[in-house]
Amino acid sequence: MQNEQFDTVRAIVWEEGVLKLLDQRRLPQSSEYMVCKDLACVAAAIKDMVVRGAPAIGVTAAYGVVLGAQACYRQSPDSWKRDILTGIDKLAKARPTAVNLCWAISRMQRLFGDIEGDPYPVLLDEACKIHAEDISANKTMGDLGTSLFEERCAVLTHCNTGSLATAGYGTALGVIRSAYAAGMISRVYAGETRPWLQGSRLTAWELVQDNIPVTLLAEGAAAHLMKQGEVKWVIVGADRIAANGDVANKIGTYNAAVLARYHGVRFMVVAPTSTIDLNTPDGDAIPIELRTEEELLMISGRRIAADGAHAWNPVFDITPAALIDVIVTEKGIVSAPTLEKMTALIRS
Amino acid sequence: MQNEQFDTVRAIVWEEGVLKLLDQRRLPQSSEYMVCKDLACVAAAIKDMVVRGAPAIGVTAAYGVVLGAQACYRQSPDSWKRDILTGIDKLAKARPTAVNLCWAISRMQRLFGDIEGDPYPVLLDEACKIHAEDISANKTMGDLGTSLFEERCAVLTHCNTGSLATAGYGTALGVIRSAYAAGMISRVYAGETRPWLQGSRLTAWELVQDNIPVTLLAEGAAAHLMKQGEVKWVIVGADRIAANGDVANKIGTYNAAVLARYHGVRFMVVAPTSTIDLNTPDGDAIPIELRTEEELLMISGRRIAADGAHAWNPVFDITPAALIDVIVTEKGIVSAPTLEKMTALIRS
Repeated sequence: MQNEQFDTVRAIVWEEGVLKLLDQRRLPQSSEYMVCKDLACVAAAIKDMVVRGAPAIGVTAAYGVVLGAQACYRQSPDSWKRDILTGIDKLAKARPTAVNLCWAISRMQRLFGDIEGDPYPVLLDEACKIHAEDISANKTMGDLGTSLFEERCAVLTHCNTGSLATAGYGTALGVIRSAYAAGMISRVYAGETRPWLQGSRLTAWELVQDNIPVTLLAEGAAAHLMKQGEVKWVIVGADRIAANGDVANKIGTYNAAVLARYHGVRFMVVAPTSTIDLNTPDGDAIPIELRTEEELLMISGRRIAADGAHAWNPVFDITPAALIDVIVTEKGIVSAPTLEKMTALIRS
Repeated sequence: MQNEQFDTVRAIVWEEGVLKLLDQRRLPQSSEYMVCKDLACVAAAIKDMVVRGAPAIGVTAAYGVVLGAQACYRQSPDSWKRDILTGIDKLAKARPTAVNLCWAISRMQRLFGDIEGDPYPVLLDEACKIHAEDISANKTMGDLGTSLFEERCAVLTHCNTGSLATAGYGTALGVIRSAYAAGMISRVYAGETRPWLQGSRLTAWELVQDNIPVTLLAEGAAAHLMKQGEVKWVIVGADRIAANGDVANKIGTYNAAVLARYHGVRFMVVAPTSTIDLNTPDGDAIPIELRTEEELLMISGRRIAADGAHAWNPVFDITPAALIDVIVTEKGIVSAPTLEKMTALIRS
């Protein structure tokens, strides 16, 4: 596969019975792994954004269940299935918007019933499967997304959806990697993604390592960029896709979708089917996480805003299905998403 | 006047024969004045953004001409009108987008012909007039803009258009001050305004001092905010208004205009007629300043972006007249601006 070269970063590593998470709060200044030996540590790592990105959170949570089950089983082999529930509840509530978190936990829990004896080997096997399947899904989506390019062009992406946000390769950034390898992308524009600067810190870091030309811009410059005509696609990931095709994703995504429609730029959402939640009817039903205002008022521990000022810091927004040209999943492409099409995709 | 209370900040002070400029690069952490004793210092202060904001740049440039003429006259009383031209050219080119800079310089130069002897008293008088007229224009625009409010509501503003960006009181922020004093504004939302953070550093600073409730947000959160329905107006300033009503303003303004139209939020531009340039036919003819990528890649002297990443940093954009509901000037309000209406306003 010609794009194997673009697969160097490992954000989630299971090694010698512990989970190692590349601390994304410290990138790109330093590449340090946090070692998690128990479920509580994993939940805290998700909550504190040591690891972020919907698919990566799902994979991480699966390993968290492994660690939790192992500890509970060691303490009480007869009651581990009950004892782990408090920890699982905490894990599930670590972040509210990305549905992959609950999806992965549920998938792990579904195995509990049939487990007799030590749950460790069965659960670890399942977590590794979730991990591997996500990488595989990303590669498939990379190919599918690339097939949508009709001409070589520049693209705009938002937040980080690459190896750091997934089990590897990436969703939107996976499509970008594949389309770049196929010669269809001339340049990647990346919104810096305030307040957490996922674009400047993480996406730029990944793309520089892969020698894919990346130009950062302030979110405010997106309309001015689209006006120039070089960008033909906006490509983003998703934290949750509702049954009707509404998409929750990093704050600023909805902005980009409105601007894209106004400028005749096409809008592509790339996400594995684990991100689709048929139990959420539409975007209004998706909980939007509000994080501390300090994320906006301070940078690198230094206050940038005037004393006494407050901030509003919703970290996701909802892009209505009507503004989305295509949703790319590992099971296929949905154009102009609707409830019928999303349901058919999941049941296919 | 009930809004006299909102007029405490003095960004441009002429005192004892020198120009003192509140260094806006250091706000809000420290309030230090840079003292300019010659024209070159004034040009550098504009270029380096010690002072910024189109009207403030115009007033500053007028005082720069005073200092330049004084120095040239002292050195050579017979040739000062010729000797000052190099300095004036440098001053005029300090920043390319705001037309107030050239407007103020031209207004000062028009007096040169009739001056005999020491130019200092005549030119200083004119600079002080430009200064006072700008404050007066802002107060008038404050009243006019307030008259457009049909209900008490929240507003969204972008960048800084207050006392710091003008001779005093402000353009868009002047309307906000007046409308707040009149009970028509419940809350001011202010975009943090990447990359220079004029919203977080300057607008929030001014509003906190005036006890006007201000909530900062990332530019990327604007669409999500508008969706909530609380914001009825976007109110911004302008760096140059073309003859057809197209508006150059801080990068991100065009984004906000597209989003406002999509959400049925009204869009108000507030600028004195010194910002209108009938010699610029439309937005395409307005030069857009590109500043160094370091403004995006670094914050407070610390690199935030990945090594090797580049950035695109246009600091203004063009909002087409078609997206603007009203332009408020000291000479009156123009609704749905066109060439005919703008021309009629200027010639009225």
